[in-house]
Amino acid sequence: MGDSNQKEFRVGMIGYGFMGRAHSQAWRNVNAAFPTPRIHMESIVGRDADAVARAAAQLGWHRSHTDWREVVADPSIDIIDICTPGDSHAEIAIAALEAGKHVIVEKPLANSMEESRAMVAAAQSAAAKGIMSAVNFNYRRVPALMLAKRLIDDGRVGEVLHIRGAYLQDWLSDPNLPMSWRLVKERAGTGVLGDLGAHVVDLMRHLAGKDVEGVTGHLRTFTHQRPDGSGGHGTVTVDDAALATLALTGGAVANLDVTRNAPGRKNELSLSIFGTKGSIMFNLENLNELWMFDREDPAGEQGYRRILVTESAHPYLSAWWPDGHIIGWEHTFTHQFFEFLTSIENGTPASPSFDDGHAVQAVIEAIAASAENGHVLTAPEE
Amino acid sequence: MGDSNQKEFRVGMIGYGFMGRAHSQAWRNVNAAFPTPRIHMESIVGRDADAVARAAAQLGWHRSHTDWREVVADPSIDIIDICTPGDSHAEIAIAALEAGKHVIVEKPLANSMEESRAMVAAAQSAAAKGIMSAVNFNYRRVPALMLAKRLIDDGRVGEVLHIRGAYLQDWLSDPNLPMSWRLVKERAGTGVLGDLGAHVVDLMRHLAGKDVEGVTGHLRTFTHQRPDGSGGHGTVTVDDAALATLALTGGAVANLDVTRNAPGRKNELSLSIFGTKGSIMFNLENLNELWMFDREDPAGEQGYRRILVTESAHPYLSAWWPDGHIIGWEHTFTHQFFEFLTSIENGTPASPSFDDGHAVQAVIEAIAASAENGHVLTAPEE
Amino acid sequence: MGDSNQKEFRVGMIGYGFMGRAHSQAWRNVNAAFPTPRIHMESIVGRDADAVARAAAQLGWHRSHTDWREVVADPSIDIIDICTPGDSHAEIAIAALEAGKHVIVEKPLANSMEESRAMVAAAQSAAAKGIMSAVNFNYRRVPALMLAKRLIDDGRVGEVLHIRGAYLQDWLSDPNLPMSWRLVKERAGTGVLGDLGAHVVDLMRHLAGKDVEGVTGHLRTFTHQRPDGSGGHGTVTVDDAALATLALTGGAVANLDVTRNAPGRKNELSLSIFGTKGSIMFNLENLNELWMFDREDPAGEQGYRRILVTESAHPYLSAWWPDGHIIGWEHTFTHQFFEFLTSIENGTPASPSFDDGHAVQAVIEAIAASAENGHVLTAPEE
Amino acid sequence: MGDSNQKEFRVGMIGYGFMGRAHSQAWRNVNAAFPTPRIHMESIVGRDADAVARAAAQLGWHRSHTDWREVVADPSIDIIDICTPGDSHAEIAIAALEAGKHVIVEKPLANSMEESRAMVAAAQSAAAKGIMSAVNFNYRRVPALMLAKRLIDDGRVGEVLHIRGAYLQDWLSDPNLPMSWRLVKERAGTGVLGDLGAHVVDLMRHLAGKDVEGVTGHLRTFTHQRPDGSGGHGTVTVDDAALATLALTGGAVANLDVTRNAPGRKNELSLSIFGTKGSIMFNLENLNELWMFDREDPAGEQGYRRILVTESAHPYLSAWWPDGHIIGWEHTFTHQFFEFLTSIENGTPASPSFDDGHAVQAVIEAIAASAENGHVLTAPEE
Repeated sequence: MGDSNQKEFRVGMIGYGFMGRAHSQAWRNVNAAFPTPRIHMESIVGRDADAVARAAAQLGWHRSHTDWREVVADPSIDIIDICTPGDSHAEIAIAALEAGKHVIVEKPLANSMEESRAMVAAAQSAAAKGIMSAVNFNYRRVPALMLAKRLIDDGRVGEVLHIRGAYLQDWLSDPNLPMSWRLVKERAGTGVLGDLGAHVVDLMRHLAGKDVEGVTGHLRTFTHQRPDGSGGHGTVTVDDAALATLALTGGAVANLDVTRNAPGRKNELSLSIFGTKGSIMFNLENLNELWMFDREDPAGEQGYRRILVTESAHPYLSAWWPDGHIIGWEHTFTHQFFEFLTSIENGTPASPSFDDGHAVQAVIEAIAASAENGHVLTAPEE
Repeated sequence: MGDSNQKEFRVGMIGYGFMGRAHSQAWRNVNAAFPTPRIHMESIVGRDADAVARAAAQLGWHRSHTDWREVVADPSIDIIDICTPGDSHAEIAIAALEAGKHVIVEKPLANSMEESRAMVAAAQSAAAKGIMSAVNFNYRRVPALMLAKRLIDDGRVGEVLHIRGAYLQDWLSDPNLPMSWRLVKERAGTGVLGDLGAHVVDLMRHLAGKDVEGVTGHLRTFTHQRPDGSGGHGTVTVDDAALATLALTGGAVANLDVTRNAPGRKNELSLSIFGTKGSIMFNLENLNELWMFDREDPAGEQGYRRILVTESAHPYLSAWWPDGHIIGWEHTFTHQFFEFLTSIENGTPASPSFDDGHAVQAVIEAIAASAENGHVLTAPEE
Repeated sequence: MGDSNQKEFRVGMIGYGFMGRAHSQAWRNVNAAFPTPRIHMESIVGRDADAVARAAAQLGWHRSHTDWREVVADPSIDIIDICTPGDSHAEIAIAALEAGKHVIVEKPLANSMEESRAMVAAAQSAAAKGIMSAVNFNYRRVPALMLAKRLIDDGRVGEVLHIRGAYLQDWLSDPNLPMSWRLVKERAGTGVLGDLGAHVVDLMRHLAGKDVEGVTGHLRTFTHQRPDGSGGHGTVTVDDAALATLALTGGAVANLDVTRNAPGRKNELSLSIFGTKGSIMFNLENLNELWMFDREDPAGEQGYRRILVTESAHPYLSAWWPDGHIIGWEHTFTHQFFEFLTSIENGTPASPSFDDGHAVQAVIEAIAASAENGHVLTAPEE
Repeated sequence: MGDSNQKEFRVGMIGYGFMGRAHSQAWRNVNAAFPTPRIHMESIVGRDADAVARAAAQLGWHRSHTDWREVVADPSIDIIDICTPGDSHAEIAIAALEAGKHVIVEKPLANSMEESRAMVAAAQSAAAKGIMSAVNFNYRRVPALMLAKRLIDDGRVGEVLHIRGAYLQDWLSDPNLPMSWRLVKERAGTGVLGDLGAHVVDLMRHLAGKDVEGVTGHLRTFTHQRPDGSGGHGTVTVDDAALATLALTGGAVANLDVTRNAPGRKNELSLSIFGTKGSIMFNLENLNELWMFDREDPAGEQGYRRILVTESAHPYLSAWWPDGHIIGWEHTFTHQFFEFLTSIENGTPASPSFDDGHAVQAVIEAIAASAENGHVLTAPEE
């Protein structure tokens, strides 16, 4: 399968849970949508030999392994894709970069700034040798948000003044949902803040082209005890909801609101970006749509425009289906991998970079620190 | 017109600007929708004799006056309706209550807690003599929000955990819009925070039945100079945007985001109320709709339900038109006045009370104080 | 109340049911929104003397009467407003026009073309004497549809090719809802076709500026027996649903679908108008919104624009509230009466005219005739 | 790749245009989502040897061919997937069935009833030998419409009375779009009627479980001449828009409206299904949503419920991503192929069957015949 004269990048993927399935879907389809650069799905790594062999067969990988070091050391491998939990990202990524592999890491880049700082250093050394690295903030590659970025960069909303960002899910509304590692601080770092909040912070920085200069944070845990699956209970040690205010470069301000306890909001990553000349709205539950308001439309005809971002004039869409035929969540991974491959082939820096991942981590930790300092409360007088 | 045996409450209204027009619309129509208690539109007060006489003719008032003290002293007047700017509310309201008139005051109750505290005291003294007082947080009387209150009180969303409240307008997006008293701290107290934020804070307290225990606030002014209308410029001394986090009784949390610089959002007072069993959404731009999500609906059939709140089963609607025939913004005033009249007739306390107005003022001032203390900024480390 | 030097048109209204309440609301408020021409709510007519006296008191009329002829003969009356059931429209309207009164008739103009033809003749004779007549297709006066008309007339959608029009309600979904005169052919003429379909046909003709050249119709009655309220049953003899295809002037085509059995659609009068350059969407359940698509917007930025028709740049809105403060269904009557008064004052023909009412009646009857001829069915071969 | 003990069905696909790409996407991913029955992408067929070889490489097929007969004759092939234009469907499908291959045909089944009748006969003969056949009305496999079918079958909307079905696109709005075979009657049979209308008719029959007993049709061509790409013009000989009324079994009625000239409607296949107890709405542009109204919800809480059909409780979704992570248009093919494979493995009849395809063709032809007979026009009298 393929043109034998053409270079194929051989991919090794570490981890095969939910994210491993999503990444495999993207690797499996990237060359049908974007014929070059070509890849080969070579190796998949997991700890259980039988399970990972079954996953390889189902997901389309050529070989399976139980030790990631084997794959990192394999000279036939060009790209390492890291889908493991966050606490192992730094070790694997640094080893792979040192072995001369291009590396893409699922977000968040790491569980701590100490780790992410080391990863940034490794990425810089690797870059000097033409080795690329990226963190998979895949929502940058939603076509509607690619369009949003283009519109903002073209000045269509003017100077960005105010961003409202939220990521609302509801899977923790059920108090009987059992404990998992995601609810334990030692494993997960933070709760919803680092998991969903990281996406929103990355998009705010990316879309507005602004840095975060200061934050206030407020974290809440609504359900403190959950069944541990063996008749007892475990203690939730991370945040269920996180609210923050962000001061952005140039006097702009942002509102962040993330929760896993919003009944009915299944996967609402919503953004409103208000500028001096117009504004933009987005909601991940309808990821094929972008809404734009232009203050320069004729008086009496102004209104939010629902752009169905499915046309060949839109980013990535000429690779897919005719106008109006929507794509799904998984396509954001395909687009991100295509961008990463193109960077490798062209020798241009990949994006989002480890620097981006580190900057987001810094904001997350500042929010958590602000919340801990408890200076949130000014009591109304009587 | 009317049954001569029936008591008519004679109303005197102070002020006749935008709010005076809206109040007049409500007084003019209240008895067509709700035949009793009956009112008579007696006196309107403004400073310019000719202008107020024209307003009386146009809006349906029997007499016009230039001195509010005349009307407050008039023994034939039963009710004083105060629509003047906030800095005169306390003086007029206290005088009217002392003269034995029932008093309804446009929101915000006052421009400072000092004033609102005095008003509460006057209201308490008056109440002892059967004299009623209310502050016109009219959005409590949107039928959809009356329904929301009923659903929450009936336990349909469970324990309220998290509220997202915003009030977004865009009329200050135009940098050439001239100065007005609303943009001057001495006259207006605060900017968008006290004007629009007050509505949201009132609704959060009212709908969730919770008090605000602590706040963090962050205010921004985006446009500092505006044309003064005579070739020069004036300085804006109030906030264009206000963001706050609120800690509510019982561990709940709320997010407040208000601005006059959100291009395309004309009058979006939006609320999402997340509880343990369900949630509720509302947007004032579609004020005839309430959205509800019920976690107890059958699996596979759960979803936000768009309730078109226009049926005779809904609050106030049997007084209006058949199912699906929507009402407008002005009807909220009609409903509030009907409630106020009913309280007077029945001798039951009116709502929202001056206490409510004072409590909202306390939250607004706490937010402003938090913002001034500048403890919002925790800088992300590098 | 009012300027004594200024002419006031004295109105007499015949009928005081649901439509009488809506008309009264409009007469009561028209001069608050539109100060001139001025009116006076003089006389209301109903058959039950006590009930109509109570209605007069509640709705704001000066006098009540039990015989419409009295009011038609009263020299002090300038305008006759007819809100009775359709079978009396012709007699009253013709008498009033002959008596030199300006006449506005609730839609449909009449129950038969024989009647509507006579009314057109009377209107023509009256017009020669400066006497105005109009039929109250009030939805022409929804600001969003006034804007739609302006956009279409300005060529913003190009040549109109195709219209989708529907009016969907659900109040007959309940099989236990009792019989009423509306369900009896002798009284109501047709069912949903003449009641709701007439509005849609009028809007199609009006907005597109096109005549109906041919039709196909298909009528259905789903519930044939209903409780008669005294333990027995009555027979429904009109249509519950009507579907039609219309051929319009210039090769355009239209689809008409009206029903009272669409659960969940409370008052959905929806229109989509497709032209060569763009299109327009409207739904009466959100009557403050118009959606427009412009094929000439830049590639990649095209989308339906939700125009919140509440700005001072929009028709009638400067008479009401600030941007984003929505109006209700009743305001369409106020606007229509203002237009009618302006026509009278200026001596210009009123619109919609009796000619319009007659043309709509002709289409309704053609659809009913087509349905009766039964030529709807071409059976698919096996 | 895969378990060597497990049977793999070897697929040969005829045609590789737009539909070939979509089918390949589905074959490439079906076993990642649904591990069994397993398939192998063996052969792809096209007329241009180089182009089809490139397509094979890009889309993931093992071998390419230029003669479909070769693949039909190949004993290693189990399944023939036909994506060619409609005029070749009958010949290929009948040959393949006779060769003992399972056959799935892209819709429409054929261009004429003569062809579809022969295909039905071939399918019946093949079925007797355990050979399966299906027509790819893929929208039956939208999870939201699978849910709709389940709800209707469970009686949740009661007896279906009235269906509104439309399929609106806008790619012919541009008068400069050049001619193509789709606009020529000899090649395409009909225009939008057979292309988009066929989907709607199939869904109406399928979802309501009702047959079409009679029709009225009305076809329009708005643009008669189009550039032929070589400086001249060609003549459009098919319909741009088709409107029809359908009488369904049991007294129900349906409205069909399809066009390629609806500016702004990119791919709106919309359905409203009204029953005695509730109703359902769907729009393909938001294919992850189903809206349901239940007349048995408590009074005051009734409303259309937006079900985001992305949960593991919903059809097919447990094979994909977590709640709220939407899927795209292409997944409908994956689901349909999974169903077809399951039928083959289990020896149960596949659906939609050739009978379904033939029945739809009969309705399409009846509509076209009705339109030609011109009995659409009943002229309104003057």
